[in-house]
Amino acid sequence: MDALVRRLYPLCRSITGDGVRQTLAVIDDLIPLTVHEVPTGTQVLDWTVPKEWNIRDAYVADATGRRVIDFRESNLHVVGYSVPVRTTMPLAELREHLHTLPDQPDLVPYRTSYYQPTWGFCLAQNVLDALPDGDYEVVVDSTLADGSLTYGEHVVRGQVDQEVIVSCHVCHPSLANDNLAGVAVAVQLARSLVNPYYTYRFIFAPGTIGAITWLARNAAVVEQVRHGLVLACAGDPGPLTYKRSRRGDAEIDRVLAHVLRDRPHEMRDFSPYGYDERQYCSPGYNLGVGSLTRTPYAGYPEYHTSGDNPDFVSPEAMVDTLAVCREAFAVLDRNRTFVNLSPYGEPQLGRRGLYDSLGGRSDAKDAQLAMLWVLNLSDGWHSLLDIAERAGLPFTAVVAAADALRAADLLKEA
Amino acid sequence: MDALVRRLYPLCRSITGDGVRQTLAVIDDLIPLTVHEVPTGTQVLDWTVPKEWNIRDAYVADATGRRVIDFRESNLHVVGYSVPVRTTMPLAELREHLHTLPDQPDLVPYRTSYYQPTWGFCLAQNVLDALPDGDYEVVVDSTLADGSLTYGEHVVRGQVDQEVIVSCHVCHPSLANDNLAGVAVAVQLARSLVNPYYTYRFIFAPGTIGAITWLARNAAVVEQVRHGLVLACAGDPGPLTYKRSRRGDAEIDRVLAHVLRDRPHEMRDFSPYGYDERQYCSPGYNLGVGSLTRTPYAGYPEYHTSGDNPDFVSPEAMVDTLAVCREAFAVLDRNRTFVNLSPYGEPQLGRRGLYDSLGGRSDAKDAQLAMLWVLNLSDGWHSLLDIAERAGLPFTAVVAAADALRAADLLKEA
Amino acid sequence: MDALVRRLYPLCRSITGDGVRQTLAVIDDLIPLTVHEVPTGTQVLDWTVPKEWNIRDAYVADATGRRVIDFRESNLHVVGYSVPVRTTMPLAELREHLHTLPDQPDLVPYRTSYYQPTWGFCLAQNVLDALPDGDYEVVVDSTLADGSLTYGEHVVRGQVDQEVIVSCHVCHPSLANDNLAGVAVAVQLARSLVNPYYTYRFIFAPGTIGAITWLARNAAVVEQVRHGLVLACAGDPGPLTYKRSRRGDAEIDRVLAHVLRDRPHEMRDFSPYGYDERQYCSPGYNLGVGSLTRTPYAGYPEYHTSGDNPDFVSPEAMVDTLAVCREAFAVLDRNRTFVNLSPYGEPQLGRRGLYDSLGGRSDAKDAQLAMLWVLNLSDGWHSLLDIAERAGLPFTAVVAAADALRAADLLKEA
Repeated sequence: MDALVRRLYPLCRSITGDGVRQTLAVIDDLIPLTVHEVPTGTQVLDWTVPKEWNIRDAYVADATGRRVIDFRESNLHVVGYSVPVRTTMPLAELREHLHTLPDQPDLVPYRTSYYQPTWGFCLAQNVLDALPDGDYEVVVDSTLADGSLTYGEHVVRGQVDQEVIVSCHVCHPSLANDNLAGVAVAVQLARSLVNPYYTYRFIFAPGTIGAITWLARNAAVVEQVRHGLVLACAGDPGPLTYKRSRRGDAEIDRVLAHVLRDRPHEMRDFSPYGYDERQYCSPGYNLGVGSLTRTPYAGYPEYHTSGDNPDFVSPEAMVDTLAVCREAFAVLDRNRTFVNLSPYGEPQLGRRGLYDSLGGRSDAKDAQLAMLWVLNLSDGWHSLLDIAERAGLPFTAVVAAADALRAADLLKEA
Repeated sequence: MDALVRRLYPLCRSITGDGVRQTLAVIDDLIPLTVHEVPTGTQVLDWTVPKEWNIRDAYVADATGRRVIDFRESNLHVVGYSVPVRTTMPLAELREHLHTLPDQPDLVPYRTSYYQPTWGFCLAQNVLDALPDGDYEVVVDSTLADGSLTYGEHVVRGQVDQEVIVSCHVCHPSLANDNLAGVAVAVQLARSLVNPYYTYRFIFAPGTIGAITWLARNAAVVEQVRHGLVLACAGDPGPLTYKRSRRGDAEIDRVLAHVLRDRPHEMRDFSPYGYDERQYCSPGYNLGVGSLTRTPYAGYPEYHTSGDNPDFVSPEAMVDTLAVCREAFAVLDRNRTFVNLSPYGEPQLGRRGLYDSLGGRSDAKDAQLAMLWVLNLSDGWHSLLDIAERAGLPFTAVVAAADALRAADLLKEA
Repeated sequence: MDALVRRLYPLCRSITGDGVRQTLAVIDDLIPLTVHEVPTGTQVLDWTVPKEWNIRDAYVADATGRRVIDFRESNLHVVGYSVPVRTTMPLAELREHLHTLPDQPDLVPYRTSYYQPTWGFCLAQNVLDALPDGDYEVVVDSTLADGSLTYGEHVVRGQVDQEVIVSCHVCHPSLANDNLAGVAVAVQLARSLVNPYYTYRFIFAPGTIGAITWLARNAAVVEQVRHGLVLACAGDPGPLTYKRSRRGDAEIDRVLAHVLRDRPHEMRDFSPYGYDERQYCSPGYNLGVGSLTRTPYAGYPEYHTSGDNPDFVSPEAMVDTLAVCREAFAVLDRNRTFVNLSPYGEPQLGRRGLYDSLGGRSDAKDAQLAMLWVLNLSDGWHSLLDIAERAGLPFTAVVAAADALRAADLLKEA
């Protein structure tokens, strides 16, 4: 995952353009992607696909021709979607187009202006402070033209058509935690799924407009979506944070609470600010989609700055995020609701070889306890996860009990 | 408000009679009142309007003719609804008609006997203790005769016929906090309402029988009542206390919780003891009517004694009570439920001028956050107050967001 | 109760056989029992009534003929349902049939093998450790033959056919707390019921198979069961523990919470492990049956060992358990839901002699408060117990208020 982050880091992504295409091509090397191109001007829900933006070069140079701000050093230096410009202006006038972080004077901020045609440069406050007055040459060698918005999908077919979506935004340029770490975890997660119950769909799309485009073009798929996870900021050193879906008690919310229970973590209620859960959880869809991050949206000083580079994310953190995702999907995939076929009194487990023959002991075995719990609560209303939570037993023990009881014809699916 | 309290203080109010009429006349000087007279004998719900009681004079005089208990000094000295009496009796016999507070020997208690014909005097224990044995002349120059029960209403018409009622009892004689302070706050509150959404009805009626009479005669209005507040004990030095309606989660209960959140206050569950919320919250009506006081019913030593005089209430306390009422009604009046007309994904606020064009910043503005919250939760189930509570935003910010979104045709009323 | 425990203690009970019959005969001396015999081979729900087990003698003797393990000393020494055996074998081979408690080396464990034909002895670890190698004579003089399963019932007819069941397991041999103490409390409880509202049915049956047999043969009675209590471990020195029914908020659960509130106690959620609440609360029945114990199932070191002898239980503890049962049934029996027949405003209690005529006092009497609470909450939804809990008043005060209001035609049963 670390290698993938470092490979994707230099590409100049935005909400459209070749940076996204190159990113999807790299992912496609690891998991096959279906790549979609949606033409400029296409109406998607309340939005319109914008012109495609590409950039070859950009700089601000002083009177000696020295580049004092240089896109070739970092693509963060140019405001995303800057319109082409080639001019010379005094520093005083140029300042209106310069963005800095006065409180973090060594860092370059990340700024965009997708829907308001303008241009700008981002730089460290310290660099700006050191610029002498005088005229500067300003060049943004970009194009804004009819083209398309690009996103990719990878689908792992399951036993049923009902879907779990995993969504990562791929529109940020050189920012590692936000969201190359999320992409890297999603790729490994996709590779780890073997014959799952649900169909899992991984969506790599630009933030906001990309998720909106996907939703607009996939009404039939949306009908099949049962659960989902927005993956972002998956590699910073902070503990995991799960942000509940708008529903607040969707199955994915309960699964993550169960899986995170014994790890350092933070649970947050839904808010309509953050990543693409904003779209999946808009009231018309209201999908059971939560968001898993380590330190969440805007919660760390390096957020949306040049400080969010590949050294800020760690392989250990990504491995930990991946482990939680895998565990959560293992629970989700096995969580089912059953009906006890022998609901009057306890069935005689002993004659079915499911219960110790020696009575009187006080140390009941977990496997037997789990069977009693599954039998008692399998009334068509309690899922295996409900039972695990109520019994205080590991989910895997409850699944094993359900398997044994099903094999003995004592349970059927609700 | 302090002046009004002091002006009303000397009047000898009871559940009927000229004291109530004089009180309503003083209020009518400040806000126009419709005054109703309901004849003795009228059946009102389970009750009957009693005979009207008036009193000219009352005293107990010693053998020298000196008045040792004198109605002219304080109307608390006579038990309310005392029947006329003119006799002489020894102290031993008189004692059965005397009421004191042995634990508060300097204070005169307030006592009534509306429905059991008797007479009595109230006095300080210390005064009683100093009375020598011997014969005393006893005079109650009162009348109990067919007449009427009097109450007043002031209505501020709103944009809709649905009503908010504010109810104050006006049956207590010279007691300042209970309830001249409540009357004074209600009068100022009425004067402060300008073109409200709801129709606000202020009811000045004697306790219990007055509220019952109002309810009995206003079946059609009761159908329109959506919210209400019983105002009492509004001027003592204690912190505000809100007693929830019987429903416990009526909108008025949630509004007061919201408004009081950042002030010292106490929340109490409904109990069927206190002021006229007892009637409005009887199970047949079960109105969303709470009760706002400072120190509540029977909660301060001066309660129902001569210690509850105009010096016990402070202008500052009444101003504070008034401020909370005004804030609460401002929330109530603006609290509405909307439906997001663009519920699939977020609508593009930027092209409507409602969203910053510069992206990437982490300091989202409250106004934008409020719009996202309103859009996300406006599904016909969440009111603006629900949204403010859930978002942790000021109610006013949420209202402003809703106004902006309505102006942009993104919301309609549910 | 202590005498009953000591009288029943020596009997060798099991899930069938003469020990149960003798036990029921002793109980029948105190409260008349209907004793049922259900033949071996009868299908009961998912189970089959097993062969009847009886035992005359059993021992392990050393080469000198000395009994080193002797059933005549304690019936715990033989594994319940041991098949007959008469043989000699070396200690090494015998060990496979010996059960000890290595962590409690002085105590004899209680073990059974009802459904797996085998034989075995239980002894103290210290005794086992002292046995020299060599051959031992092994005798179990038992019979396993067609016969019947025996259980007894005592019914106290009430004013209605709806039933409360009290269930005690009577299958354990010489164990005092588990469950002779429960039996003793149940017997006294039955004797204390005088003209109850509900019909109370006391079930004395072997654990699991006995409760299952009762359920299988009493489908019509089960339809009438409204509440129930499984009584066990009723005499140990620990505080009372109430384990809720599977429903969690059944009326019996709320009654026990109310009654235990002011005593040291522990509340536990339902779990499908313990005593016969397992059967009554299986999902097909889901009866409102909780379990009252002192220290619960498997919660004390003496549990299912020879340490659970008559000295382990105390008369004081049984008296305390009985008192709580009686109080709980008094609440259950009087808990009813009413409708206020004068629900609009408060009815005029004064003219009905239910309210003080002297007004203005702040010390409202509990009886009047209770009437106001009953009137206010009697809307057909709140039971008297609900009202007592909400009002913070004793249940008896609320019952008295309801009685007075019914006498005044202000309430009717819902």
